[in-house]
Amino acid sequence: MDSGALGRLRGQAVTLVEVAPRDGLQNEAVQLSTADKVAFVDLLSAAHLPAIEVTAFVSAAWVPQMADAADVVRQITRRPGTRYTALVPNLKGFERALAAGVTEVAVVLAASETFSRRNINQSIDASLAVYREVCDRARAADVRVRGYLSTAFGCPYEGPVAVDAVVARTMQLLDCGVFEVAISDTIGVAHPGQVARLLESLQASVAIERIALHLHDTRGTALANVMAGLLAGVRTFDAAAGGLGGCPYAPGAAGNLATDDLVFMLDGLGMDSGVVPARLHEASAFIATRLDHPLPSRYARAPRLIG
Amino acid sequence: MDSGALGRLRGQAVTLVEVAPRDGLQNEAVQLSTADKVAFVDLLSAAHLPAIEVTAFVSAAWVPQMADAADVVRQITRRPGTRYTALVPNLKGFERALAAGVTEVAVVLAASETFSRRNINQSIDASLAVYREVCDRARAADVRVRGYLSTAFGCPYEGPVAVDAVVARTMQLLDCGVFEVAISDTIGVAHPGQVARLLESLQASVAIERIALHLHDTRGTALANVMAGLLAGVRTFDAAAGGLGGCPYAPGAAGNLATDDLVFMLDGLGMDSGVVPARLHEASAFIATRLDHPLPSRYARAPRLIG
Repeated sequence: MDSGALGRLRGQAVTLVEVAPRDGLQNEAVQLSTADKVAFVDLLSAAHLPAIEVTAFVSAAWVPQMADAADVVRQITRRPGTRYTALVPNLKGFERALAAGVTEVAVVLAASETFSRRNINQSIDASLAVYREVCDRARAADVRVRGYLSTAFGCPYEGPVAVDAVVARTMQLLDCGVFEVAISDTIGVAHPGQVARLLESLQASVAIERIALHLHDTRGTALANVMAGLLAGVRTFDAAAGGLGGCPYAPGAAGNLATDDLVFMLDGLGMDSGVVPARLHEASAFIATRLDHPLPSRYARAPRLIG
Repeated sequence: MDSGALGRLRGQAVTLVEVAPRDGLQNEAVQLSTADKVAFVDLLSAAHLPAIEVTAFVSAAWVPQMADAADVVRQITRRPGTRYTALVPNLKGFERALAAGVTEVAVVLAASETFSRRNINQSIDASLAVYREVCDRARAADVRVRGYLSTAFGCPYEGPVAVDAVVARTMQLLDCGVFEVAISDTIGVAHPGQVARLLESLQASVAIERIALHLHDTRGTALANVMAGLLAGVRTFDAAAGGLGGCPYAPGAAGNLATDDLVFMLDGLGMDSGVVPARLHEASAFIATRLDHPLPSRYARAPRLIG
């Protein structure tokens, strides 16, 4: 049994980075209370998610949902062994995060120039200069920095993004000092063939241990893309409880790959994520009661399995 | 480039069996006109789907949507090279199909005894006896018979279904004379690890060329399950345009694997299904105008790709 490519995955460890409290909630129209956000993060750590992106230290004018970032960080119950991270856009955000007690931060670089300029009104190179400062400051403060490379599989303005650009930007992020780069399918256009080819190109220059995949499920390919990632040796995947994220009011737009769906698949492959599914579903069910739309997660919405 | 397990799929042929006109429409509350059904089938053949399950010769009292089976078969425009098939539950249905000019039929056997009895009020062994008669009659009439093995990955009443039972029932169907068996995830509970293990067990007794996969996307795993099937050597997959099927009114219940989603993935893998995506999307868009709910297909509902 299990002699094939998938069988060889059995027993291997996978690290999940839970991004629902940040990437999942940032676009929600309902303003959640700080207490609900804290309860959500604590339910996620109780489900043994090994890493949780808790919030973002961004301008409250731009992302009102994240205005209470420092309060959320201060009020969560830190489970020993869980990594808590926060997104920071610049040095000012980093200093706010540091003051709140954050020990790991994340920065987002775009692979598409047009996306970078339209999304944050800054060129990719200008962002890199900012992140180099953040990484230097973080090193001095003993804070780890994770990198996202957004629009790595496609841009809503430019369409396809050149593989060479993705490889170059990944290396520049690593050169700044990030410990890993989450190659991100921001608009959910990736398919497994593209994932396989991009990872093959990346591996010519970057150790696979430095690569994570951050997938959105807009076209229903997220789990298949995880399969392509697993076959290429990726062992770190971002996911959001309940499949939150994206734009919940756009018809057909789906959010992040759902942690619920991913854990169901990884458990079926016999891989070891350490996540406790029943606790995870409690976290998803809790946050669903606070939102004004059903969870995108297919697994969460399906009838419960029997037997 | 493309040296891995997925790269080896590039250039290989895949056969898609389009089941939307039958498995997709049979549970729709809206009664479609015969003309609309015929137009839908003709749009699907124009998209170069190589095999289309057109209708079912079942009791009109049980499945009112299929009452016009003979008219649909007679009115479609037969594209040379396209296989047109129809589901038949018994010898009476077979004779009706034959009289209408059908040259390929399909029969459905359950892998779960409880499902068989509750769904068609007949034991699995009794069904096999019926299908043996159908296959004998079909052979004499020069009609091919395709087999489905339903609930092969799980039963809504019994839960998990034993691998040994799936293998045994598959062999019994082949022994009746079906040319291939579509191993069917009727309630959409399969995950890639289960697909890989079941196919490995099946291959000990059955040539992989005799095996197709018929997947539903209830838990979002259908494309990942296709990946597991491709890695195991399966080259025939059922799918329904727009992701139709299942129970469209149950919250969270999804239909068949969407042909739209599958073609997007197969094209990305560089595999050759022969299907013309733009024409396929026309077929899905057409049928969407005749139904009272959005298409389940993620690809069909997502923003159009640019570039």
